[in-house]
Amino acid sequence: MNAELLNELTALLPKDGILTNPAERLVYDCDAYTVEKSPPDIVVLPTTTAEVSAIVKACNRHDTPFLARGAGTGLSGGAIALADTVVICLSRMNRILGVDAHNRTARVQAGVVNNAVSRQVASLNLHFAPDPGSQTSSTIGGNIAENAGGPHTLKYGVTTHNTLAVQFVTSDGEIVEIGSDVEGLPGYDLVSLICGSEGTFGIVTEATVRLTPLPQSWRTLLAVFNTLDDATNAVSAIINEGVIPAALEMIDATVLESVEAAYNLGFPLDAAAVLLVEIDGLDAGLDAAEAKCRAACQRHHARSVESARDEEERDALWTARRKGVGTLGRIARSMVTQDCVIPRSRLPEVLREIGAIVSRYGLRVANIFHAGDGNLHPIILFDERVPDEVERMTAANHEIVTLCLKMGGSLTGEHGIGLEKQDYMALMFGEDDLDMMIRVHKALDPDDLVNPGKFFPGSKKEFRETPESITPRRTALV
Amino acid sequence: MNAELLNELTALLPKDGILTNPAERLVYDCDAYTVEKSPPDIVVLPTTTAEVSAIVKACNRHDTPFLARGAGTGLSGGAIALADTVVICLSRMNRILGVDAHNRTARVQAGVVNNAVSRQVASLNLHFAPDPGSQTSSTIGGNIAENAGGPHTLKYGVTTHNTLAVQFVTSDGEIVEIGSDVEGLPGYDLVSLICGSEGTFGIVTEATVRLTPLPQSWRTLLAVFNTLDDATNAVSAIINEGVIPAALEMIDATVLESVEAAYNLGFPLDAAAVLLVEIDGLDAGLDAAEAKCRAACQRHHARSVESARDEEERDALWTARRKGVGTLGRIARSMVTQDCVIPRSRLPEVLREIGAIVSRYGLRVANIFHAGDGNLHPIILFDERVPDEVERMTAANHEIVTLCLKMGGSLTGEHGIGLEKQDYMALMFGEDDLDMMIRVHKALDPDDLVNPGKFFPGSKKEFRETPESITPRRTALV
Repeated sequence: MNAELLNELTALLPKDGILTNPAERLVYDCDAYTVEKSPPDIVVLPTTTAEVSAIVKACNRHDTPFLARGAGTGLSGGAIALADTVVICLSRMNRILGVDAHNRTARVQAGVVNNAVSRQVASLNLHFAPDPGSQTSSTIGGNIAENAGGPHTLKYGVTTHNTLAVQFVTSDGEIVEIGSDVEGLPGYDLVSLICGSEGTFGIVTEATVRLTPLPQSWRTLLAVFNTLDDATNAVSAIINEGVIPAALEMIDATVLESVEAAYNLGFPLDAAAVLLVEIDGLDAGLDAAEAKCRAACQRHHARSVESARDEEERDALWTARRKGVGTLGRIARSMVTQDCVIPRSRLPEVLREIGAIVSRYGLRVANIFHAGDGNLHPIILFDERVPDEVERMTAANHEIVTLCLKMGGSLTGEHGIGLEKQDYMALMFGEDDLDMMIRVHKALDPDDLVNPGKFFPGSKKEFRETPESITPRRTALV
Repeated sequence: MNAELLNELTALLPKDGILTNPAERLVYDCDAYTVEKSPPDIVVLPTTTAEVSAIVKACNRHDTPFLARGAGTGLSGGAIALADTVVICLSRMNRILGVDAHNRTARVQAGVVNNAVSRQVASLNLHFAPDPGSQTSSTIGGNIAENAGGPHTLKYGVTTHNTLAVQFVTSDGEIVEIGSDVEGLPGYDLVSLICGSEGTFGIVTEATVRLTPLPQSWRTLLAVFNTLDDATNAVSAIINEGVIPAALEMIDATVLESVEAAYNLGFPLDAAAVLLVEIDGLDAGLDAAEAKCRAACQRHHARSVESARDEEERDALWTARRKGVGTLGRIARSMVTQDCVIPRSRLPEVLREIGAIVSRYGLRVANIFHAGDGNLHPIILFDERVPDEVERMTAANHEIVTLCLKMGGSLTGEHGIGLEKQDYMALMFGEDDLDMMIRVHKALDPDDLVNPGKFFPGSKKEFRETPESITPRRTALV
């Protein structure tokens, strides 16, 4: 670490706003992609946009890379600091600056936790719709960086659809206001460009987010299937009924086994998969929509379709979805979650093929995912102490990604590229396609100071020294 | 025109694919922003992406600017060729290349007309949702360039929300594939960046668009109000009921007067405004939603709220909306349509103030617009033969834009910046904000060859010679 830069940062921030001792820095050595670790040289905790700007300008003066970090719940390593990188942690910028109930927007600092927004506006009958698995800890800034989604984004859209404007510190430390608090965005849509850019352009410090009315009512169904094919065919059948479920999630037998071991909620242990279907809106239309969903499941041989009768039963169903991944620790020492998207029509064959791939490598797979979007999350279970299991897991994962791309799918649905998938980018994009992204990146970060070593194929290797690779551990959230 | 470039283009295209004689070129001298005119030196009509690429490469070799044109229905002059610009007209690239009913996407060439897509997939019970006033003539490529919206985008989103992927010819003629046919977009969201970029980055030659199920059923209401305030307050009241109408349009007394003169549909001539409210979806929920809309209108003193009883009555109501602007020719010689967005909560005061501004200049205003989005279209009626009326219209228009920006609004909702509003950009964006857009533009069009003289403040003046300004005529579509 450059001593002069350290002096400048120390002068900019209060004493507790800068962390330099090894024990403190260790907390920031990875995000929820725990496959690689690298403690940053220095962590700063600004409380204002002006401080962020000053920090970025100091880093520029010393040609030192930096990255923004929220709660560190990202799943592809985007917040892991490669060598000599200053981590700018925004967790103290956690104020909700204003709520406009009439126009249904909120202005928040980047470090506000996702569901703190919804809690704040619940009394106004509103919420912030994107609901990643990390919503109790991940921040709006992190949600924007990764363009986070969640179960209910099938109906309500991902983060980019719910972000109207941002305050943004550019790679050279200027503060700019991007977007507009009203619908109708003149100029280039830089808000969408920033959403999902994985923190590689600059630092979002504030955002105007869209608020969505809480649904007047809901119906939550659990459909139980004896085969994966029936369950996945029912997904398309529901969508083809013209119903847009708020959520349409699939949970397979492996996850049900571990959920039951943990919570004993009464899920069937002999089913191949269940679908969790939620519809919401004005109460008057929901019975008819429920009947359509139910009929679609029954046409695809659901052995039962039950509705949650009250909030308690609904919570139990959602517990299986929200906590399902966490419970897998009961049946496996380690796991790795994949995140690909495929055309919904390909669900049956792709799930069959994923099962076959993982079996061929002598491992188990668990599936719990956003079926309505075709956003798969196959989770490979393994034990890193068993010789070869890490290699077999890695090879199986590689085959799964390749399969999804071959099926016309996409490399990531919501977890991002980061460190994890940068070398896959070249499988999905041609040289000219990548070149266009690189050009845009160079325009906004000409000195490659903002979160370098991420996103682009080979960028990790090119970036100075790479951190020591460690054995994969568990990933926590889907 | 460079003779060598002309030779190269002639060699690339069949005889009828290149227009050089003055009479033919005159057809392309403006778009629906008829305030300025400039016949291009040369118009080419490619039929394949490879031809577009070759044309762009030829233009690059001769340092000659070019722009893409669809149907020329744009309202801000984006398709007007400034001096020495080659117009690449994509109207012959009008094939629908494929429809995937299961995954609800269509792959289309850029020159396909908007509602040709909906007609093609109607038998599958699907449609392409964005419905600009120009939908019977404007093309998908133009819709993408301007990020077109329409009455039903309140519920179904604008073009960017309905575009998954594009094939794109870069400023130097490379062909790239951007985006992904499935949900979940890895890498930078260049599709959103291109949507609404007004053809200043390169040329979209194909797109994968999202298809939306046709609603099972609908209810269309006409609520009649004695004051503008009541009508605009009812707009917010409907939204606050938690209903998302498919469309929520306001039509004022001036437009009703001209609609009645043209079609005699039975609209009241003594009302201040009517709201056209359409809700759609599964039939089961619509009566309840209709009741909520009706109650909201009645709370705000609607003197009547009537439902269309059948398709014929519904068509009559929509005729008023779709043809309303066109009928204004009966009561005014000329008109200019403004396109601003304001926070919905500001509708009452802004409409009052717009009325006062236009009166102060001794002119009349007509209002027919997407009230649910806060997307205003005040239309100033004038007569260019009367001394000073053009100047007064221009001054009033300027005050209206300034007012909307002061109210926290946005410069354009759906008509774009183009030639018309480039000098207003600096009123809405700071220097740093604009600089970020300029940087992105420079990255993708380093030689400023793609549709130069548009979009950025002062760019028209900077660009070689400006075309002769002519007296404003009418704008046709809203």
